[in-house]
Amino acid sequence: MPNAYIIGIGLTKFGRHPDRSVESLAAEAVGAALRDADVEWKDVQQFYAAHVNQGVAAGQRVIKEVGPSGIPVLNVENCSAASSTALREASMAVRSGEFDLVVVAGFEKMQHGVLLNVHPEDSPEVVMGTTVLPMRFSLMAMEHMSRYGTTLEQFARVTVKNRDHAVHNPKAQYPKPMSLEQVMGSRMICDPITVYQCSPTTDGAAAVVVCSEAYLDRMASSSRAVRLLASGLVSDVEELAYNKFNLDFVARNARAVFERAGIGPQDLDVVETHDCFSVAELLAYEALGLCDEGESGRMIDEGETRIGGRIPVNPSGGLIAKGHPLGATGLGQVSEIVTQLRGEAGQRQVEGARLGLTSNMGMWSSCIHILEAQGAR
Amino acid sequence: MPNAYIIGIGLTKFGRHPDRSVESLAAEAVGAALRDADVEWKDVQQFYAAHVNQGVAAGQRVIKEVGPSGIPVLNVENCSAASSTALREASMAVRSGEFDLVVVAGFEKMQHGVLLNVHPEDSPEVVMGTTVLPMRFSLMAMEHMSRYGTTLEQFARVTVKNRDHAVHNPKAQYPKPMSLEQVMGSRMICDPITVYQCSPTTDGAAAVVVCSEAYLDRMASSSRAVRLLASGLVSDVEELAYNKFNLDFVARNARAVFERAGIGPQDLDVVETHDCFSVAELLAYEALGLCDEGESGRMIDEGETRIGGRIPVNPSGGLIAKGHPLGATGLGQVSEIVTQLRGEAGQRQVEGARLGLTSNMGMWSSCIHILEAQGAR
Repeated sequence: MPNAYIIGIGLTKFGRHPDRSVESLAAEAVGAALRDADVEWKDVQQFYAAHVNQGVAAGQRVIKEVGPSGIPVLNVENCSAASSTALREASMAVRSGEFDLVVVAGFEKMQHGVLLNVHPEDSPEVVMGTTVLPMRFSLMAMEHMSRYGTTLEQFARVTVKNRDHAVHNPKAQYPKPMSLEQVMGSRMICDPITVYQCSPTTDGAAAVVVCSEAYLDRMASSSRAVRLLASGLVSDVEELAYNKFNLDFVARNARAVFERAGIGPQDLDVVETHDCFSVAELLAYEALGLCDEGESGRMIDEGETRIGGRIPVNPSGGLIAKGHPLGATGLGQVSEIVTQLRGEAGQRQVEGARLGLTSNMGMWSSCIHILEAQGAR
Repeated sequence: MPNAYIIGIGLTKFGRHPDRSVESLAAEAVGAALRDADVEWKDVQQFYAAHVNQGVAAGQRVIKEVGPSGIPVLNVENCSAASSTALREASMAVRSGEFDLVVVAGFEKMQHGVLLNVHPEDSPEVVMGTTVLPMRFSLMAMEHMSRYGTTLEQFARVTVKNRDHAVHNPKAQYPKPMSLEQVMGSRMICDPITVYQCSPTTDGAAAVVVCSEAYLDRMASSSRAVRLLASGLVSDVEELAYNKFNLDFVARNARAVFERAGIGPQDLDVVETHDCFSVAELLAYEALGLCDEGESGRMIDEGETRIGGRIPVNPSGGLIAKGHPLGATGLGQVSEIVTQLRGEAGQRQVEGARLGLTSNMGMWSSCIHILEAQGAR
């Protein structure tokens, strides 16, 4: 089956935008992605709009800001994995030959803080009192400490690293370093997770332009294109929702995606993963196969996931420091990997990056993409 | 490109279900569709969940009721065209070879009546006072009366016909006849639209099983399968939203879909169209090419769109009499056409139906499918 390529990316500043509409944020990202791809809006054949909580016909409202068009719009929701899910769908449509050129945008303007009540009031989750995400991840953290001796410092070090990375990312919400003491000494949200180990409340938008192999062949220059090597989506209803203490559903998805891509975790040069809480990043090292089970604490201690380390994770600053505008988060990750694979990441560049992975989670889904620099095909 | 086929349909009773969750309604429809297709849930490869207003991760919540599964879930929103939009997406994925067997479900439990505020409070639509859908359609009705001499009786006759059709549909919300006098004498909602010319507030769910040509070839018997001959989606942001007085965007979509299918409106045997208001059905006759511009009033007068007429429209009872559970409406239409093309519609059967069309509208989209009885290929 033919390939799909990302030929344009666009991102708003991640942060709080009290004076702007979500439509204007999304339109800014779409406009930037079109310019980056050197593509005209009128040539786009389908628009995928991803968000969590932005109301009915959100994609159509965004198009009003981008410019008149009669193209099909698909509004996709998949909690915090919405926009990576939409990208997977878009890439299938492009690989199938249905379309040559599509745009995917993710956007969110947070209205009630980072936590959403995603359950009906009388659902088992609410009755059991496990709705609150920090509680779920704190249980995972405690289990990891008990099984593998993981320490509070190791969790907190995720934030320290991601803050350091974000310093060089002009789109990041918190581009300022933070010491281990600051992270550990900050307000406790749900033991052992302190406030600076939680992703913040963020508004923002991200967009990508996806094209077919046939379209790419007609382009004057394709050196900045990035190939979508493989994608996978697992929507698991039994795991994150209840009392599991690892990210098995991410691991299952990762194994399948690696197999489809014909590579292994050792082949990756750079990773963006879903650090909604610090513990989620450590658990992801293990689920994605970047280290063995129980080894993630050592891995962060030894700086293996810092820029310059063995396998840099979240060079953008991740959800914790770049920000977490739910519907935009997946494409925010993809934008960072594309930037890295193009060699355009400036001071946060991972040297020689050719293969990258994004791991995005939603309730209750894992969406993973593997991307490859175009020169490598 | 290979074809996609519908091999199973499932529908709940359309009506009010105050004591049931939307998840249980959707699971009932999915279960019925799986049984109808003689397919096991564990063999399904992707689940498309369509709704308008049922909260985050609705598809995943439905799966909890259907049974454990780790398959990918895509939640699709497109206002009242949500589930026909999801079916188009599913059929593309199946035709591409990505999947052999997928399930699409549409569901809705209405919480605040039939009208949703889909606009931000400060949007131009709200400021202009044109948000309310009956007002938009009443303007269209008045323009049609002024241009073509269409009468109040002709609009009201749509309800009379659709009520007559619904009498033979056990899933319909209002399976009772209604006289022209009752329709015209009922409470005025927005002149000239009376309350019985509006679609009601409805809860319900509908589901279909879609398979690939390769899967169909392996089936013991495929005589009840229905081929998805062509699909089209136009998401127009300038028309229904503002001051247009016809359904040009539906006409544009229909022309493209007919061309793709290699047929014309004269080849159709049966149609389900989006009669959110009576006037919308008359305008659809013209937009879909069932008659010339301005001829729809005469067409309803002469009974051409009744069962037994030249081209029966809404044999199910349509949105007005079968009900309009937003996210389920598109697949409700598709289920009716599949039933008709199988020859299983009992007393509401359109004799010899081989080719059918569904026309579903959302704000601001038109989604059209053309379906063909399997024996005809």
